[in-house]
Amino acid sequence: MNREELIAQIFEKKSFLCVGLDPDISKIPSFLLEFEDPVFEFNKRIIDATKEYCVAYKPNIAFYECLGPKGWISLKKTIDYIPKKMFLIADAKRGDIGNTSLKYAETFFKTYDFDAITVAPYMGEDSVSPFLTISKKWVIVLGLTSNSGSSSFQQLTLESGKKLFEDVLEKTATWGDHSNMMFVVGATNENQFSLIRKKIPKHFLLVPGVGAQEGDLHKVIQGGIIKDVGLLINSSRGIIYASNDKFFEERASEEAKKLKDQMSLYM
Amino acid sequence: MNREELIAQIFEKKSFLCVGLDPDISKIPSFLLEFEDPVFEFNKRIIDATKEYCVAYKPNIAFYECLGPKGWISLKKTIDYIPKKMFLIADAKRGDIGNTSLKYAETFFKTYDFDAITVAPYMGEDSVSPFLTISKKWVIVLGLTSNSGSSSFQQLTLESGKKLFEDVLEKTATWGDHSNMMFVVGATNENQFSLIRKKIPKHFLLVPGVGAQEGDLHKVIQGGIIKDVGLLINSSRGIIYASNDKFFEERASEEAKKLKDQMSLYM
Repeated sequence: MNREELIAQIFEKKSFLCVGLDPDISKIPSFLLEFEDPVFEFNKRIIDATKEYCVAYKPNIAFYECLGPKGWISLKKTIDYIPKKMFLIADAKRGDIGNTSLKYAETFFKTYDFDAITVAPYMGEDSVSPFLTISKKWVIVLGLTSNSGSSSFQQLTLESGKKLFEDVLEKTATWGDHSNMMFVVGATNENQFSLIRKKIPKHFLLVPGVGAQEGDLHKVIQGGIIKDVGLLINSSRGIIYASNDKFFEERASEEAKKLKDQMSLYM
Repeated sequence: MNREELIAQIFEKKSFLCVGLDPDISKIPSFLLEFEDPVFEFNKRIIDATKEYCVAYKPNIAFYECLGPKGWISLKKTIDYIPKKMFLIADAKRGDIGNTSLKYAETFFKTYDFDAITVAPYMGEDSVSPFLTISKKWVIVLGLTSNSGSSSFQQLTLESGKKLFEDVLEKTATWGDHSNMMFVVGATNENQFSLIRKKIPKHFLLVPGVGAQEGDLHKVIQGGIIKDVGLLINSSRGIIYASNDKFFEERASEEAKKLKDQMSLYM
């Protein structure tokens, strides 16, 4: 999906919500365990319950990978079930030397037809650029993450006076452009969005950390929104585990609608 | 496998060679494509040809993942075929927020019975520590990698005067200890090994970049070896693609023996 198509969908739905599909077998409603593929059954119902309110889905690959080959089959069925107009993000946080990153790009952009993949920047330019070679596909580089560990390295001050994450945003942005690159900026860093917008005024930001991680949605939007919106705000656990009983679909739907309604206020 | 068992095996074999299993379907001998599982057939023959000369195998997960579910089946068969005394490394470069890293740990330490996994440090302490909770299992943190992109961020100078990779080595080392943590230091940084040894005198270093990437084996050993050896030196392409004709096993065996013989000189 290209930038224009993504933006058009956002304005049409008045939503920039991304729903994270992190199906944990120990957390999904127990009656689903009787199905042949509980992970897919869960995802299917979550998708049906939320598709009206979101523009993107983000399967977190760890939750599929840990199930062995059958997890990848559940992932493929999930991808095939998601409506074609949705922006599809592999939350995989990959990154390796060039020939290996190229294999990861092949995995997520060809073997599985994702629009985008999250990538860790530590290994530098030749670990990120192989993901940028396929048209209409996106790299989403970790900038400033939502977890407490972001203070370990991302927030270190460099000799230049900049923080490491600022250097990551600025330097990495030159390897692609705002038509094939986004950045992860966690909602828990709500006060940094204005600063970040000065450095990367046009790039989309993928924002996790609303919901279970308690980032402030309105502060994030006020600091991060641009003319083209430029935000995809993700909620995973806050939606998909809003309840784990037979009403989980209704509860997921309500939580997604609540977030969507708050987003609509800005459009 | 614990540290004592690894060291004992190294001294017994007079080798600290790790063979990288990166089976690329476009590079393996074409006659193997006629088998039902060419990837496993290739790995099996490489393992038979090299097991006398190495103490560890390192499948690079990208090369399996890109084949879809059947790639993970080939990986499992490969793991099961590798002799039990070998140290088994998942070159996966994972790392995410705590609950997700825990899933990745489950994948590689339980679903697949690896001894160790490579992890990217950018997301900080709570992204690395979930991998340290399982006894006899190891985290191998990216320190200073072998690719040109290591200059993008790893070699940046911090306000403190240290390079980022030095801070990563020092800080990360405090999250575990030398019985459950190793570091990746690329052989192409051959002049940095003495400096790195001052910072982490006891940790094992996993060293890629000998062979196809042209790091200097002897300089690496001289700068990095300690009483307990403390090195696992990896070669992937230099061994497994030494030839791609019907003599590939003999050529792989020769290349592995050549490296092992050079290592033996130091023991």
